[in-house]
Amino acid sequence: MAERTLNGIGVTPLSGVGSVVWYRPEADLPEPPEPADVDAESELARFESARERAADELQAERDQTAERVGEEEAAVFDAHIQFLNDPQISDGVEEAIDGGLPAEHAVQDAFSGFIEQFENMGGRMGERADDLRDVRDRLVRILSDGERVDLASLPEGSVVVAERLTPSDTAQLDPERVAGFVTTTGGRTSHAAIFARSLALPAVVGVGDELDSVEDGDEVLIDGEAGRVVVHPHEDTKAEATGGSDVEIRDGEVETRDGVEIEVAANIGTLDDIDLAVERGADGVGLFRTEFLFLDRESPPDEDEQYEAYLQALEAFDGGRIVVRTLDIGGDKPIPYLDLPDEENPFLGERGIRRSLGPDSDLFETQIRALLRAAGSADGANLSVMLPLVASLEELHEAREVIDDISVDLDAVGIEYEMPEFGIMIETPAAVFMADEFAPHVDFFSIGTNDLAQYVMAAERGNERVSDLGDYRQPAVLRAIAQTVEAADGDDCWVGMCGEMAGDPELTELLVGLGLDELSMSAVTVPHVKAAVTETDTAEAEALAARVRSASTKSEVTEILTESQ
Amino acid sequence: MAERTLNGIGVTPLSGVGSVVWYRPEADLPEPPEPADVDAESELARFESARERAADELQAERDQTAERVGEEEAAVFDAHIQFLNDPQISDGVEEAIDGGLPAEHAVQDAFSGFIEQFENMGGRMGERADDLRDVRDRLVRILSDGERVDLASLPEGSVVVAERLTPSDTAQLDPERVAGFVTTTGGRTSHAAIFARSLALPAVVGVGDELDSVEDGDEVLIDGEAGRVVVHPHEDTKAEATGGSDVEIRDGEVETRDGVEIEVAANIGTLDDIDLAVERGADGVGLFRTEFLFLDRESPPDEDEQYEAYLQALEAFDGGRIVVRTLDIGGDKPIPYLDLPDEENPFLGERGIRRSLGPDSDLFETQIRALLRAAGSADGANLSVMLPLVASLEELHEAREVIDDISVDLDAVGIEYEMPEFGIMIETPAAVFMADEFAPHVDFFSIGTNDLAQYVMAAERGNERVSDLGDYRQPAVLRAIAQTVEAADGDDCWVGMCGEMAGDPELTELLVGLGLDELSMSAVTVPHVKAAVTETDTAEAEALAARVRSASTKSEVTEILTESQ
Repeated sequence: MAERTLNGIGVTPLSGVGSVVWYRPEADLPEPPEPADVDAESELARFESARERAADELQAERDQTAERVGEEEAAVFDAHIQFLNDPQISDGVEEAIDGGLPAEHAVQDAFSGFIEQFENMGGRMGERADDLRDVRDRLVRILSDGERVDLASLPEGSVVVAERLTPSDTAQLDPERVAGFVTTTGGRTSHAAIFARSLALPAVVGVGDELDSVEDGDEVLIDGEAGRVVVHPHEDTKAEATGGSDVEIRDGEVETRDGVEIEVAANIGTLDDIDLAVERGADGVGLFRTEFLFLDRESPPDEDEQYEAYLQALEAFDGGRIVVRTLDIGGDKPIPYLDLPDEENPFLGERGIRRSLGPDSDLFETQIRALLRAAGSADGANLSVMLPLVASLEELHEAREVIDDISVDLDAVGIEYEMPEFGIMIETPAAVFMADEFAPHVDFFSIGTNDLAQYVMAAERGNERVSDLGDYRQPAVLRAIAQTVEAADGDDCWVGMCGEMAGDPELTELLVGLGLDELSMSAVTVPHVKAAVTETDTAEAEALAARVRSASTKSEVTEILTESQ
Repeated sequence: MAERTLNGIGVTPLSGVGSVVWYRPEADLPEPPEPADVDAESELARFESARERAADELQAERDQTAERVGEEEAAVFDAHIQFLNDPQISDGVEEAIDGGLPAEHAVQDAFSGFIEQFENMGGRMGERADDLRDVRDRLVRILSDGERVDLASLPEGSVVVAERLTPSDTAQLDPERVAGFVTTTGGRTSHAAIFARSLALPAVVGVGDELDSVEDGDEVLIDGEAGRVVVHPHEDTKAEATGGSDVEIRDGEVETRDGVEIEVAANIGTLDDIDLAVERGADGVGLFRTEFLFLDRESPPDEDEQYEAYLQALEAFDGGRIVVRTLDIGGDKPIPYLDLPDEENPFLGERGIRRSLGPDSDLFETQIRALLRAAGSADGANLSVMLPLVASLEELHEAREVIDDISVDLDAVGIEYEMPEFGIMIETPAAVFMADEFAPHVDFFSIGTNDLAQYVMAAERGNERVSDLGDYRQPAVLRAIAQTVEAADGDDCWVGMCGEMAGDPELTELLVGLGLDELSMSAVTVPHVKAAVTETDTAEAEALAARVRSASTKSEVTEILTESQ
């Protein structure tokens, strides 16, 4: 059969070949019987037992996701469980059954009303409508004896093809059995994309309606590096693509062709990520997100629990640098034991260091104590503390003072500790404009390109309507990065990067040319970026960076980068 | 009696003296009678008639606000009317009456439940709780024969003192009778502050609980310039403060002591603002917000209606420059005939030029046609078109192309028009980083400091938890302004400013020193800024700007500015 190629967005630099399994979760219900033929009592019992089964499923998927992907990602299931237990919704279903509908139709009916209400509310409430749809589809599937594909037990070598995959769907995929997935919708930062990177699964998203031409059983090649799906691939196409993705894993630091060392580290969002990072040859951790320690619990982790977690990372990398970001949380996350504000624009609200120096100062102090102790305990520990969302020098000085005060306290009671390296995220435009003032006071900067691009362009990354504008290839973002590196020059301050951009091997040469000292990314792409570093010549890279900096539009940037490949 | 001073935030640079009238809207209800003593039927009738009266009041206040302040500000009353007509809420009240409560208690009870629900929802929904409280208090006042102060008919020379003033409250104040207001809460950008500037009322907000020590009938001086309230002021204190606020109104352009002309223009949010701007001696309009033409209606204004509105401004200023900003609207505004998205962070979403080049391109084209025709019709018209929220060069070029295409169309059908000046708002950090690329393509920049400060600092201006961080005195914001002016230097591109900062006379010298050519502000402060310009020497101003630019914290900036006064 003739080979044919569909184009989309590759979200992991991995390739895989397998057999298509279409996943279509929406159940088509037959026409309901006449009300007189419906036995309300038995339908109520069916609904009750479906609810129980759904709750069991959700709890199991919740735990599985927390373990495989991270606590933060697992939180979506809590919302589903809440809806499942909502008395108003259950009353609605029961009323519909009393009105003569079978349980599955009653669920469809009652949920649709609530979904519409949420949609009309708009804002964050509008998004809950998607969660409600997930819960409805789950109940209807259970009630209609779920003919849908069971994602958790697919035949080995399956490629899941779907219009979209919800977090519940993705969490069920077993990376040992599934060869990857392809979706009609989605972008680089969609939920499914983030899951794919965490699970190291080949994946292409945003293929569009052309994907409908692919049929169950078709052999497809997923080329996550090129962002393409090849249907009925020739043997040599397969060999080329899967060979290319089998990048050598290099342990130890890598350097450019002319001998400049670039640290290539991993971003960590759960303790399990540490193993994958070691396996993929990361030099250390460039971004240890500590939020997972605080999410999905009734009270914050105490000092010892945190100390153990930091120690685990330090010991796994034995001398490798571990950059721990202090708690970066704000009004868009649900944490029951924190008094988080409802904000109209949570990304422009009280989050990150603003909370650590404000309402969450107790948590911040506990975290700093745990970090100082961990730095003092591990042999050859190389710990760095990094502050999120710094926008003013006062914040830097205040946080420094907290750390100094805690070290005095620890001295006073004779607890062993070590002062860690101290740095800040560069993710607000303010930090870029003030970088020359910050540099003398810190050991390092780490540029968080996801947030930086969002604030520089005034375009939220998760908002599909403006995501093209919020791209890190925008010249304004590149200028902000260049301005940061230049501001640090001359001070004893290394500059790293820990956003999505750092993990894009097509940009490695540019980033070396712009003068970055360290790149930190999802563990899965570490070997690809290490390979790209070894192929880079810094003089050529600097020439490329100069060319890119003279570009005035994103398409000019993309063109220059394509030419240089 | 001894004079005593309370400090707060002055929101207009005006002073006034008057007699305190405390305004306490919350009604204390007596214990309800026994259910058996309540005649449900007559209570239902009372509730019905209270609802009707409330609706009449709201409609009247709505119209009054639209006329006095602007359509945008009047929109809040539409939300109140909606709640008043909400069948779910009415049902709740009627049920409570049926349960044996008198109408006023039933309103308290039923509304409290809904208020709590909205608060629990959080986000934008949480804010609706305030609107519900307003509606509840209004109904309870009407039902309990409203003993509260009638703001619309206060004795002449009253100073209204309150914990807070809602939009409904402020809209009732008659600037002819009221000497000003003072509130415990609020900041420079609160609703009440914006109203005070629109109505040219002396006002001090954010005084804190000390304000409770002031009693009905006390004579107070409101010094809006110094942000203080003097209780029992001495005659010489009054003379000094009110003399100082009686700034001379200068018609015609002003220049610095050494002869540099600075254009001082007014911001316009409704057609009525034009009169006040002329009265206060504005040279023209530096920011004509066109949103009021589009709000509170069922369909957009057609080309002729817009043409008339622009013409009215052009004719009022006869040769003065009128800078019209094209429609700047996004997901945080309710406009029934636009398909506005629900966004998690509307300030980082699809708004301004993004919509004009996307889903609202029809509206944009109509607006441009109306503008080109208006520019061609008025004698000596001096019209500029300004694009909001530009973040990339592509947007600039695309908008330019729309304008060129429309001029070709108008030529083809022989309609008279003139090409206006063409410029952009500098309000995203991206525009600052790319300003040198933008400058050759435009006639002017206008720096929108409200949004710019918000994006640079990643701190929403309306969010009290981070408003200190989002202040335009932050050194990062000042650097962004300086970088913009420098980027325009050498190109034929004048640089203006149209945010709150431009209207702060304490900053006029600094802004002249930074190289701004034009300042645009609420009409009320035009004379103060004109006076400040005439007192400025540019060499001294440039030295001040250099000192301020070397400051690394907001408190250093404030200190330097205080020293220079």
